[in-house]
Amino acid sequence: MKQTLSVPKRKSPPSDASSQSTRELVCELCRNFYQLGWASGTGGGISIKENGRIYMAPSGVQKERLRPEDIFVLDAEGEPLEEPGRGLKLSQCAPLFLHAYKIRNAGAVLHSHSINAMAATLLFDKRFKSRNLEMQKGVEGYGAFDTVEVPIIENTAYECDLADSLEAAIRDNPKSHAVLVRRHGVYVWGKDWKQAKTHAECYDYLFEAAGRMKQLGIPLEQ
Amino acid sequence: MKQTLSVPKRKSPPSDASSQSTRELVCELCRNFYQLGWASGTGGGISIKENGRIYMAPSGVQKERLRPEDIFVLDAEGEPLEEPGRGLKLSQCAPLFLHAYKIRNAGAVLHSHSINAMAATLLFDKRFKSRNLEMQKGVEGYGAFDTVEVPIIENTAYECDLADSLEAAIRDNPKSHAVLVRRHGVYVWGKDWKQAKTHAECYDYLFEAAGRMKQLGIPLEQ
Amino acid sequence: MKQTLSVPKRKSPPSDASSQSTRELVCELCRNFYQLGWASGTGGGISIKENGRIYMAPSGVQKERLRPEDIFVLDAEGEPLEEPGRGLKLSQCAPLFLHAYKIRNAGAVLHSHSINAMAATLLFDKRFKSRNLEMQKGVEGYGAFDTVEVPIIENTAYECDLADSLEAAIRDNPKSHAVLVRRHGVYVWGKDWKQAKTHAECYDYLFEAAGRMKQLGIPLEQ
Amino acid sequence: MKQTLSVPKRKSPPSDASSQSTRELVCELCRNFYQLGWASGTGGGISIKENGRIYMAPSGVQKERLRPEDIFVLDAEGEPLEEPGRGLKLSQCAPLFLHAYKIRNAGAVLHSHSINAMAATLLFDKRFKSRNLEMQKGVEGYGAFDTVEVPIIENTAYECDLADSLEAAIRDNPKSHAVLVRRHGVYVWGKDWKQAKTHAECYDYLFEAAGRMKQLGIPLEQ
Repeated sequence: MKQTLSVPKRKSPPSDASSQSTRELVCELCRNFYQLGWASGTGGGISIKENGRIYMAPSGVQKERLRPEDIFVLDAEGEPLEEPGRGLKLSQCAPLFLHAYKIRNAGAVLHSHSINAMAATLLFDKRFKSRNLEMQKGVEGYGAFDTVEVPIIENTAYECDLADSLEAAIRDNPKSHAVLVRRHGVYVWGKDWKQAKTHAECYDYLFEAAGRMKQLGIPLEQ
Repeated sequence: MKQTLSVPKRKSPPSDASSQSTRELVCELCRNFYQLGWASGTGGGISIKENGRIYMAPSGVQKERLRPEDIFVLDAEGEPLEEPGRGLKLSQCAPLFLHAYKIRNAGAVLHSHSINAMAATLLFDKRFKSRNLEMQKGVEGYGAFDTVEVPIIENTAYECDLADSLEAAIRDNPKSHAVLVRRHGVYVWGKDWKQAKTHAECYDYLFEAAGRMKQLGIPLEQ
Repeated sequence: MKQTLSVPKRKSPPSDASSQSTRELVCELCRNFYQLGWASGTGGGISIKENGRIYMAPSGVQKERLRPEDIFVLDAEGEPLEEPGRGLKLSQCAPLFLHAYKIRNAGAVLHSHSINAMAATLLFDKRFKSRNLEMQKGVEGYGAFDTVEVPIIENTAYECDLADSLEAAIRDNPKSHAVLVRRHGVYVWGKDWKQAKTHAECYDYLFEAAGRMKQLGIPLEQ
Repeated sequence: MKQTLSVPKRKSPPSDASSQSTRELVCELCRNFYQLGWASGTGGGISIKENGRIYMAPSGVQKERLRPEDIFVLDAEGEPLEEPGRGLKLSQCAPLFLHAYKIRNAGAVLHSHSINAMAATLLFDKRFKSRNLEMQKGVEGYGAFDTVEVPIIENTAYECDLADSLEAAIRDNPKSHAVLVRRHGVYVWGKDWKQAKTHAECYDYLFEAAGRMKQLGIPLEQ
């Protein structure tokens, strides 16, 4: 379905105006995710691919206070095209994001430290499972009566060391638009920023629902 | 009780200004509901009937980012009078909303994916029940010492397939201003948008209270 | 302690400017309380006494959308001095608020439907008790190692019928700045709006803490 | 890592503009913390050291409504350089904050009454412990597979009486950037306001995670 809300897509090479609006969008969404509790403590964030250029936040900074001039711009291989300077470093998530861009042809990739996502990795072993919830329909390819599965990979000491297992999980689970990381959070993507955000909100709801059911004594795999 | 807060009601045929203000109101309320967690992942939303015209959001779009020009306008039978174009599609909820407009003479109908509503459907079989809570008084026809009942219908794979069972639930429960859908959410209506919103907030409180009581070990049917 | 933040107190007869700023303050605080979940579904609200005049919101309206011209102004006996008209009715809480103004010489009285307050009435019989929490110090007359007690009165079908038992509870508990109402919410007051709001925030924290402790298996009366 | 987001650091003696921007920053962060539930009921707050001058909020006032002219300015020994007057008193936290400034060479110190922090002190005896959570990496000196420990000191009737045990806890736990106070809250610091805020958000996440795990039946010391 074609959607024309908010920032329009352009097919021509990026003008300065297009680049600026994508930079602003990254900042706006990071503020949004901070409000949702997904990006506290400098964690989390979103990367957007637009006209073959990948916009990405710097590492270790407060995501809710990003300004457009703080954003890195990479080419499709992850090589920097524009750097903010001022000592800012590219996010350690960059290689992880690139896997979703390349393997899944994603248009945006989101990383969340939501406590719902982290807690969901404590309730399941190798795969998170959700069954028979309407919100599953917000994840492309799933219906309300399907089982949504999300692979859970083990955390590593350095975020860049997640790259291989994340790549394997993406390849081994072609239906999933997300990979959970144990005691850490979740990576979610979509064909564009709207779908990535929609996927992230729906998955987070499913993670929260699992915790809520556990607390209420409702069997998770109903 | 006549209320004159905010947008005034007009009895004359809709001027462009009236139509515009109702479109803006739909957008504003959707932002409000997103903040409340009722409309994440493009789910949920509100439809308002004004001067015989029904204003409704498109399907599958981020409800918190709606703009007035994205809204569909239908006649009382659900036939489109104004369409936003740009590939936007009418909400699948449209036939469901129409039942509340027709059978209950509603002035606004709201659909929420609140996790409180979803979880409430896991605590009861055929009917949600709340007893002896002050917030029940916010639902027209109920007092603080009544039992508020909300029918729970089973979810369907496609939202439009809910229409028949929703219609039956509305007809069979003339006192209720809401119908819960199992593992999905809730439809709520009122004589105007203020009452629909008030009903939705009060019902959501009752749903949340049921979950809270369950967690605290308090009997639900006290 | 004298505080001079925000709206200054005036000792002279109220100018139009003074009256207007108090009306705006009531509206602003109601928006604040809606955000906190204390005033959803048209419930809750705050009344402020300024220069012998009592400012009060109308009944059954959305508290977060109040405008200054919607506010009632009463004299110290509760007789209306200024009415908004337009079908708006005085809050049923008015006689309850007056008890706190008269018996305790309050400067502001707040009513909250916070689910934390409601749930706290399910955990205790005649009196809510909190022990050894730092936030108790925000309630005038209590230290961190005291026991804060709040009387719980039984709810009534009509809010005005609470007046007598509320009055008795106020008189019988001279140390308390609040009265809980079973399965309903809480009335809180203070010498001015700042203290009433501070009291309300501190009591709500104590109510929430009691529920949290119960969920964590921590004895409430430690 | 040098960060240049938001307010720049100046090495020259403070101009009026520098002082004003730090005052505004304290107010802005206090509003932020109120939204997070860390500073309700006049509790909590942040102090920032800039150019050898310490900016601190007054005692017992609503932190979310502070204005720049309400802020105290102290020298490095805690002697007042600028006072707001108008009856405002220096925070009782001042001596506590000074310990972190002196012993740890902190650039900002934050005090939070977050219910997550308070509840965490009920789950552990002498030391809060968190293991194997990614968010630990937001606390300087810790990795995702370390054990983060935060000393818990007993609360005192008067906040100033915490000074000695807080000082001892700071000295005895050189790796920690925070001290929990039983049934009270937490003190957190960092080399500048950004790190103090990042530390506070990460610690709060760890505290919340501990409570969540307990509710879900997950062993805390996994």
